[in-house]
Amino acid sequence: MALSAGYAAAQSSVTVYGNIDVGVSKRSDTTLAVGRRDNNRLGFKGVEDLGGDLKALFQLEIRYDPDIGTIEGKTRPLFQGQSRVGLQGAFGTVRFGRGLTALQDSSSAFEPWRGVPSTAGFQTDLTVAGYNSQPLDPAGSSANRWSNAVFYNTPEQGGFQLNVTVASKEANGNPAIVGRGSLANPQYPANATLDSNPYSVSGTYNGGMVGAMLAYERNAAETTLWSVAGSLKPHPDVKLLASYQKQDQSHTMASNADTKAWVTGLNWNVGVGTILAGYGQKSPDGVAKTKQTCVGYEYNLSTRTYLYADASRRASAASVNFYGVGIFHKF
Amino acid sequence: MALSAGYAAAQSSVTVYGNIDVGVSKRSDTTLAVGRRDNNRLGFKGVEDLGGDLKALFQLEIRYDPDIGTIEGKTRPLFQGQSRVGLQGAFGTVRFGRGLTALQDSSSAFEPWRGVPSTAGFQTDLTVAGYNSQPLDPAGSSANRWSNAVFYNTPEQGGFQLNVTVASKEANGNPAIVGRGSLANPQYPANATLDSNPYSVSGTYNGGMVGAMLAYERNAAETTLWSVAGSLKPHPDVKLLASYQKQDQSHTMASNADTKAWVTGLNWNVGVGTILAGYGQKSPDGVAKTKQTCVGYEYNLSTRTYLYADASRRASAASVNFYGVGIFHKF
Amino acid sequence: MALSAGYAAAQSSVTVYGNIDVGVSKRSDTTLAVGRRDNNRLGFKGVEDLGGDLKALFQLEIRYDPDIGTIEGKTRPLFQGQSRVGLQGAFGTVRFGRGLTALQDSSSAFEPWRGVPSTAGFQTDLTVAGYNSQPLDPAGSSANRWSNAVFYNTPEQGGFQLNVTVASKEANGNPAIVGRGSLANPQYPANATLDSNPYSVSGTYNGGMVGAMLAYERNAAETTLWSVAGSLKPHPDVKLLASYQKQDQSHTMASNADTKAWVTGLNWNVGVGTILAGYGQKSPDGVAKTKQTCVGYEYNLSTRTYLYADASRRASAASVNFYGVGIFHKF
Repeated sequence: MALSAGYAAAQSSVTVYGNIDVGVSKRSDTTLAVGRRDNNRLGFKGVEDLGGDLKALFQLEIRYDPDIGTIEGKTRPLFQGQSRVGLQGAFGTVRFGRGLTALQDSSSAFEPWRGVPSTAGFQTDLTVAGYNSQPLDPAGSSANRWSNAVFYNTPEQGGFQLNVTVASKEANGNPAIVGRGSLANPQYPANATLDSNPYSVSGTYNGGMVGAMLAYERNAAETTLWSVAGSLKPHPDVKLLASYQKQDQSHTMASNADTKAWVTGLNWNVGVGTILAGYGQKSPDGVAKTKQTCVGYEYNLSTRTYLYADASRRASAASVNFYGVGIFHKF
Repeated sequence: MALSAGYAAAQSSVTVYGNIDVGVSKRSDTTLAVGRRDNNRLGFKGVEDLGGDLKALFQLEIRYDPDIGTIEGKTRPLFQGQSRVGLQGAFGTVRFGRGLTALQDSSSAFEPWRGVPSTAGFQTDLTVAGYNSQPLDPAGSSANRWSNAVFYNTPEQGGFQLNVTVASKEANGNPAIVGRGSLANPQYPANATLDSNPYSVSGTYNGGMVGAMLAYERNAAETTLWSVAGSLKPHPDVKLLASYQKQDQSHTMASNADTKAWVTGLNWNVGVGTILAGYGQKSPDGVAKTKQTCVGYEYNLSTRTYLYADASRRASAASVNFYGVGIFHKF
Repeated sequence: MALSAGYAAAQSSVTVYGNIDVGVSKRSDTTLAVGRRDNNRLGFKGVEDLGGDLKALFQLEIRYDPDIGTIEGKTRPLFQGQSRVGLQGAFGTVRFGRGLTALQDSSSAFEPWRGVPSTAGFQTDLTVAGYNSQPLDPAGSSANRWSNAVFYNTPEQGGFQLNVTVASKEANGNPAIVGRGSLANPQYPANATLDSNPYSVSGTYNGGMVGAMLAYERNAAETTLWSVAGSLKPHPDVKLLASYQKQDQSHTMASNADTKAWVTGLNWNVGVGTILAGYGQKSPDGVAKTKQTCVGYEYNLSTRTYLYADASRRASAASVNFYGVGIFHKF
C-alpha cells in the first residue's frame, strides 16, 4: 500500500533548467584561474493553473561552482539560488521560503554586467555600496538572500511594480558580530534571534525605453541601504544605466558608518555581439575610495550560448587589474 | 571514444517529482517562524518493464528545508528520502539501499496528519512511542530510515501485504551511546559495528472500508517497538484512525525502559476541504506523560495544491501551544 | 519584471540520466555489507546545435552512494562525476571545468571490469599502478579527476584520437604533504598553489577488432604515470584486454619511488550474459607485490539492467577474498 503510492505514475510538471559558465581569468594579484563569470544554476520549477486567474508556483534552484564541481562556495545551501512556493493571481504574487530580497532582485537590472559576481562586474560591491543583506546568516553565505521570508510582488500595472520582502526573526546560525559590543559581549552573539524583522522594498518602472527603481532595505543587524537607479534606451540597441546608493551601518558602527556608491554604464548591441562598459565609485566614510572601470564583449553563438571577454581595473588602497574570457551556456 | 559514449543520446526514463510546503507558525515557546509542515521532496524515479511480469524500479529522493534552502536538517544525506533499486514481479518487490523501515513506512497511514513532522502531527513522537529506528546513525539523522538495507514486500493479496526490512551490521558513523556502559566504556562506542542485524516487519490489510497494521521492529541498539493500528471508514468522507505502540529499551536502559503510546483521530472531507483531528498520549516509565490534542483544516485548491491551518496543544512537564498556516504544492 | 523573467516558460533542453547499483558483498576482513559495485550517477546534460557543424555541450553529474543515500564518499563535490561546458566542431571538442583526466578517462576501456571501483575490479589500484591524479585536492577526494581544468579532444580520424587535459595552478584545499620536506616544513603546505600545471595526454585507437592506448600524466605533486594498453576481439563475443603502467614518485619520495603494474583479462558474451575475468600484479619498489585474480558474471535482464556476481582474491602482505552479488540499473 505504502509502496504502490510511492511508485504511482505521475505526469511530471517540472521544468529542469539552468546555465553553466566557465572561463579562464587572470587577476594581477593571483595565478591564472579557471572559474565562473556568471552565477551557475541548475533549477526545477513549475506553474500549476488553478483556474480563475489563480496559479501555484514553485522554484528550487541549485547554485554551483563548475570549476570544482561543488555547490556554490562549498558550504552554501543546496538551493542557494532560491527555494520558494506561492500563489499568483489578480492580487499579485506571494511566495514563502528563501530568495533574493526585493532590493537585490530589482537592482541587478541596472548594473551593466547584469549582476554577475565576476571581478569585472559592479554588483557585489559598488551596486550595493558594500552592503550585506544577511549578516546574521552562517559564515560563507552570500550577501543578498533571506531565509525564512515572505515575498510579495504587486501585479505590474502601467509598467509599475511594488515588491516587498519580510523575514522572520528566527536565528539562522550566524557567527558572533562584535558591533558596538565587545568580544566578551558581542552586539550579536552567535546564532542570535533578531531584534526586529528585516524588510526590503523596491518600486520599479519598466516603460520600454525608460526603466527606474527606488529601493530601501533594513537587514538583520539593522543596517539600512537605499538605492535609486534608472535606465534609458536612446536607440533600440543601446541601453544606458545608472544607480546611486547609500548604506548606513550606524546600528553596529560607532563612527564612519556611511558608505555611498554610484555606478554608470551601457549595453550596446553591435551585430551578433554586445559591448558592455561601466564606471563606478564607492566612498566609505574614513576609508579609501574604490574606483572601478570595466569593459567587456559578448559574442552570441545562439540565444542560449555566448563567448565573452572582460577587462577591468579596480583601484582602492591597492589596484587590481582583471582579464577574463569564457563561455556561457543556458539550458 | 570515451567522449562520444558520454554524450550518446539517451531516451530519458526518469520522472522528476516532489513537493514543497512552506508556511508561518507560532509555538508558545519560540518566535514566529517560517517553515514546513510536511516533509519536502525532490525526487527522481523510474520503472523499466523487463517483460514476463518483471520490472526494475529505482527511486532517489532529495529531502530539503525550503525555508532556508538547505538539504533536510543541513547535515542529512542528499537522498534522505530514499535511494533504492530493485525488482518487482510475481514474488513481490525486493529493493536495496536506504529507505523507511517496514514499520515506519506502514504506520504513517494510521496517523491523522499522514505522518508530517510538524508539531501539529503525532508521527515523530506519539505514533512511534518516542522510538528511534537508527540510533547508530550519525548525529542529526532522522529517526525512521535504515541505510545498508534490503527491503521486501509481498504482493498485495486480498488486501493483505507483508513487508520486511533487514539492515547489515555495518558501522555508519554513530556518536558513542553510553547505554548500560560508562562514559569511559560506552555500550556502543563511536562508529560501532552492530552486534545483530536490525529488522522490521509489518503486516497490513487494506479492505477499502477497513485498514489494519501489525508491526514489530528491532533497531541497531536492540531497542524494540511493536505497534497495532486500524482505520475505519463509516462513511466515504470520514476516516477514523487509531494506533497503540510499545517501546522496550531494556537493552540500553537499566530501569524505566518501557514507553507506551496511543493515538486516535479522524480525517473528514467537507466540500473541497478536509478536517483533521486527533488526540494521543505517551506514557514513558517514570517520566511525565505527554498528552497531545490537534485540529487542522486543509483547503484544496486542486488535487496538487492546498492551503492548511493547524492548532495543537502538547502538555507534558511543560505545555506548548502551536498554530500554523501555509501552502502545500505537489509537482 | 524580475519576477516574470524568473518564471518565463522555457523549452527544457536537459536530459536527466544516471544509474544505480546496489548489492551485497563480503570481504574476508569485514562484515557483510550492502553497497555499490559500479559508481552511481545522477546527471543532467544537453547538446545545442549552433549551426555550421558547431555544438555547445554541457554535463553535470552527481555521484552518490545509494547504500547510505549520501553524495559519494559523503564529502566529495556534488558534481563529483563532472561539471563541464564547451564547444564541439571540426576542430574537436574543448571543455572547461572538472572531469576525468585524459589518462583516467581513456584507461578504463582496457580494464576487464570497465573501471568500476569495486574490490573485484582493477581500476582504482592496479590499472593506474596506485597513482593519484589529484594529491593536492581536499582529503577524501577521489583520485582521478581535475578541478579548474581545460579538456581537449581531437576529432576521431581513422580510429585515432588525441586527448589533452591541463589544469590551472590554483590551490584547491589540500592537506599538507610532507614529501621530501619535514613535518615542520612540508614539501606541499596545506592549500598550496602548484609549482607547475598538471597535464594529461592520451592517444587512443579504436579499430573495431583492435583497440590501443598510450598515455602520460603529471599530477599536481609532479608524480608521473605512463601507461600502454591494448584490446583485441578475436571473435565478436570475446574481448581480450591488457595494460602496463609505471608510476614515478621521485619528486616527493627520496627512494623506492617507482611502481609498475600490469593487468590482463577478458569479457566474454555467453547468451544473455557476460563473463568477466582478470589477473594483474602491482610491484612497488621495496614493498610487497599485489597479485589480484577476479572472475565475474553479468546476467542481462535488458539493455539497461543486469544482475552480477563477482569473486576475487587480492594477495599482498595480507590476502583478501571478496564475494559480491547485486543489481545494476541504468536510467
